[in-house]
Amino acid sequence: MNPKTPISLWPDPNALGAVTDLYQITMMAGYRAHQMEHKNATFELFVRRLPNGRSYLIFAGLEQAVGDLLRLAFSEEHINALKALPIFGAVAPTFFDWLAALRFEGDLWSVPEGTVVFAGEPLVRVRAPLAQAQWVETYLLASLSYPTLVASKAARVVEAASGRPLYDFGARRSHGPYAGLVGARASYLAGFDGTSNVEAGLKLGIPLAGTMAHSWVQSFPTEHDAFTSFARVFPNHATLLVDTYDTLKGVTRASAIEPAVSAVRLDSGDLLTLSRAARSYLDEHGLSSVRIFASGDLEEHAIRRLLADGAPIDAFGVGTELITSRDAPAIAMVYKLVEIDGAGCMKLSPGKKTYPMAKQIRRTLDEHGIIVRDVVTRADEPMDGDPLLVPVLKDGRLVAALPSLTEIREYCAKQRASVPARLRKLDDSAQFEVEYSKALEAEASHWRQS
Amino acid sequence: MNPKTPISLWPDPNALGAVTDLYQITMMAGYRAHQMEHKNATFELFVRRLPNGRSYLIFAGLEQAVGDLLRLAFSEEHINALKALPIFGAVAPTFFDWLAALRFEGDLWSVPEGTVVFAGEPLVRVRAPLAQAQWVETYLLASLSYPTLVASKAARVVEAASGRPLYDFGARRSHGPYAGLVGARASYLAGFDGTSNVEAGLKLGIPLAGTMAHSWVQSFPTEHDAFTSFARVFPNHATLLVDTYDTLKGVTRASAIEPAVSAVRLDSGDLLTLSRAARSYLDEHGLSSVRIFASGDLEEHAIRRLLADGAPIDAFGVGTELITSRDAPAIAMVYKLVEIDGAGCMKLSPGKKTYPMAKQIRRTLDEHGIIVRDVVTRADEPMDGDPLLVPVLKDGRLVAALPSLTEIREYCAKQRASVPARLRKLDDSAQFEVEYSKALEAEASHWRQS
Repeated sequence: MNPKTPISLWPDPNALGAVTDLYQITMMAGYRAHQMEHKNATFELFVRRLPNGRSYLIFAGLEQAVGDLLRLAFSEEHINALKALPIFGAVAPTFFDWLAALRFEGDLWSVPEGTVVFAGEPLVRVRAPLAQAQWVETYLLASLSYPTLVASKAARVVEAASGRPLYDFGARRSHGPYAGLVGARASYLAGFDGTSNVEAGLKLGIPLAGTMAHSWVQSFPTEHDAFTSFARVFPNHATLLVDTYDTLKGVTRASAIEPAVSAVRLDSGDLLTLSRAARSYLDEHGLSSVRIFASGDLEEHAIRRLLADGAPIDAFGVGTELITSRDAPAIAMVYKLVEIDGAGCMKLSPGKKTYPMAKQIRRTLDEHGIIVRDVVTRADEPMDGDPLLVPVLKDGRLVAALPSLTEIREYCAKQRASVPARLRKLDDSAQFEVEYSKALEAEASHWRQS
Repeated sequence: MNPKTPISLWPDPNALGAVTDLYQITMMAGYRAHQMEHKNATFELFVRRLPNGRSYLIFAGLEQAVGDLLRLAFSEEHINALKALPIFGAVAPTFFDWLAALRFEGDLWSVPEGTVVFAGEPLVRVRAPLAQAQWVETYLLASLSYPTLVASKAARVVEAASGRPLYDFGARRSHGPYAGLVGARASYLAGFDGTSNVEAGLKLGIPLAGTMAHSWVQSFPTEHDAFTSFARVFPNHATLLVDTYDTLKGVTRASAIEPAVSAVRLDSGDLLTLSRAARSYLDEHGLSSVRIFASGDLEEHAIRRLLADGAPIDAFGVGTELITSRDAPAIAMVYKLVEIDGAGCMKLSPGKKTYPMAKQIRRTLDEHGIIVRDVVTRADEPMDGDPLLVPVLKDGRLVAALPSLTEIREYCAKQRASVPARLRKLDDSAQFEVEYSKALEAEASHWRQS
C-alpha cells in the first residue's frame, strides 16, 4: 500500500497569481474582451473605519506585499485549470496566453511601513493597466490588512508596557504558520523587543526569546531536578517556568539554583500577587538580579492594570491577543477604483462613498512633533504639510531599496511618538478627523453630478 | 542602483522545522544533554474550553498538518543560524548535527477531519521520542487550531442557511494569503458550497464562485453598458452586482439584459427590503429564474434573521466573519505531556489541570444517530461506544491514505447531523459535558498522589 501524499496548501511563491478572487479573473477576461485591459486605472487602498478600540493604525506588511507583487504570475497548471472552468466557456483562448504572460508592470505609491494612519486616508495607490490593477486587489488586501492589525495592536501593548520589554509568543495561536511569521515581524516593527518564533527570528534578525514549557518540568522526577538540569545546559540564559505545580514553591526551588538563574516565569494565576511574593522572596535571598517574566492571556489592559498596581514584572510575553488581534481580528480595508483614463470614479453605495481621483495625504505636526492635521488632497495639489505617500514601484520595478526592518522599527517609534495624547489612551476610542481638501470636495461634487 | 530584493516570508515547505517556538529547541538541546531525547513520550492535543458562542467544534486541518509533519526538517541555513545564537553557547556542537538530521518518526492518532468534538477531548495523540514530540508542538497547534475555528464557524452558518448555497468570500480578509487557502478548505469541508479563492479552487477542486466588483461597473460609461458587456462575455454565468449606484435601478437594468442573466447580487443596504423589491420586480417581468445572491458582512445570525423574515435570497457569500471567525478568532487548543516512559504526567497549574496517560474517546449515539455520550477513557480501556481516535502515522509514516476532501465533507455532513438539537441553537452556548471513565479518574488520583 502506498498512501497518497497529503495535499500541501503552501503556494509556490513564484506562482501566487491565483491567490485571488475568481471575479478578478472574470473581470480581466471581460476587460480584455472589450479591449479595456490597458485603460489607465488608479486604485487606492484605504481603511473605511477603524475597528472598535483603535484610535489609529500602524501601517505594516508592505515589504512582503511588494516582494510578492514583483513576482506575481500564474503557473502553467493554473492556466490549464482555469481554461477548463465552465464560466470561461465563451472566453477567447488567447485570453489564457495573455494571462500566462501577465506580470504586474504598474506604479505603486505607499505610506512607509510603520506610519501612523487613520480611517479614510489612501495608504497605497496603484496606477496600472486596468486588468493588472484589478488582478492585484485581493492579494494586496490579504497581505496588508493582517500585519497592519497586528502592528496596531502591538503599538497599544507597547504603550501599556511603559518601556518594559515585550515578546511575541503567538506562534501557536496565529491563523496558520504563515500568519505567525507575518505577525512576529509586524509586532517587532511596532515596538516589541523579540519573538519566540524561530523562523521569524532567523530570517529577519528579530531577537529570539524562549524559556521552557511545563513538559520540561514534567519530564523530570522533581521540579528541582528539572530546574538544575536546565540551568546546567543554559548557564547564563535560564528562565525557569515556576508554575507547573505550585508557583511560590517553584520560586523557592528556582532561587536555590547556583549560579543564579536569569529569570523566573509566571504563566498562570494572579500575576499581581504572585509577582509581589516572588519579588520579595528573591530579594530576601539576595537575588535582586533575577528578573520576573510574565505571560498568560496578556493584552494591553491587563498589562497596564498590573503595572498601575505596582506589579514587579520586568518583561511580558504576549501571545493570542497579539497574534490574532483578538479584540479586532478584521479591518475594513478596501481597494477602490478612483480614476480611469483621467476621469474620476466614485461609488455611491450606502455607507461606502469614495472620493474620486488620485490622492495624497499632507500631514502637519506641531512644534512638539505631534500630529495636528492630516489633509487628503488631490495627488497633484499644492498644499502645506509633508506628503505621506511615496513612490515604491515604477513600471513594476522598485524605485529604491526598501528600508530595513530595523529602520522601519526606528521610524515607527518616532511615528508613535507623534500620536496625540488623547489617541493614546487605551480605554476609549477617540477618533482623529481627517480633512479633505476643497479641491477634492469639488472633484467629488463634479463627478457625482456628471 | 539595484535595490535589494524584499524579504519573502514564505517558508520552504521542505524546511518547516524552524516554524516553532525557540523553547522547543532549547528543551530539545536540554533533553539531549541529559540523554533524555529518546524517552517514550505521549502528548495529547485538546481544547480546554470552547470559545464563547460555540457549543461544539468541527475538527479540521489534519491533512495539511500531517503532510507538513512528514517533511518537517531544518535547513542548513537554520542550523548555522541556530548555532550562532548566544543561548546555545554552552550546548555541545553535536546537538546541531543531530538537529540537522532530525525527522518526525513517531506515531500519531487523530479524530478524523470533520468530526464533531467537544472541550476536554483528546483530538490528536502523539507518541514519539521526547525531543521529537516536543519539536512538533507549535507546528501542530498552529496548523490545527485555525482550520478548526473556521470549520466550526462555517457549521453554524450552514445551520443558519437551511440548505441555501453558501460561498466563502474571505480571501481578502484572512490573516494573510495562506490563511485564506486553509479557511476556504475548512469552510468547504464543513458544508459550504464553494469559494471565490482561485488557488483553493484549483488545488483542491472546490467549486469556484465569482461575480463582478464595483470597479467593473465604474469602468463603463453607464451601468447598462457594464451589465451588457459582462453578460456578453459570460452568457450563461453572469451574476450582476446591482448596488454600485442605486440598487433597485440596478435590478431594473439587470432585468433588461437578454438573454436573461443568472443572478443579481446585493452587497449593501437593507438586504431584506432590497431582496423583496428585487424579487417582485424580477417576477413581474417574467424573470423568476433569476436568482438573488446576497453578501456584505454576513454571518449566521444575520442570515437566520433574513430567512426568518422571509427574505427571498437564494444564496449567500460570507467573507470576513467566516475567514477570521470574527466572534471567536482564537481557541484554547493545547498540547500536553500525559505520559513518559509509562508514567502518567499531569499539570496542576490553576485552571490548567490535565488527565494523565494516553487516552481514547468513546462515543455513543442514540437510535436516531444523535450523540448522547462521549467518554474519555484510557487508551487501552475496554468500553462501549465507537473509538474516535484512529491511527494516522506509525513510525513517521502514513498508516493509510487520508480521505479525500469530498469524503471528509460527506463525513462531516453526517457528523453535523449527529449534533443534539440543543447544541445547534445559534443564540446560546449550551455545552455538552464530556465524561471521564472511572479508570481515568483513578489514574489521575494515582499520579497526583505519587
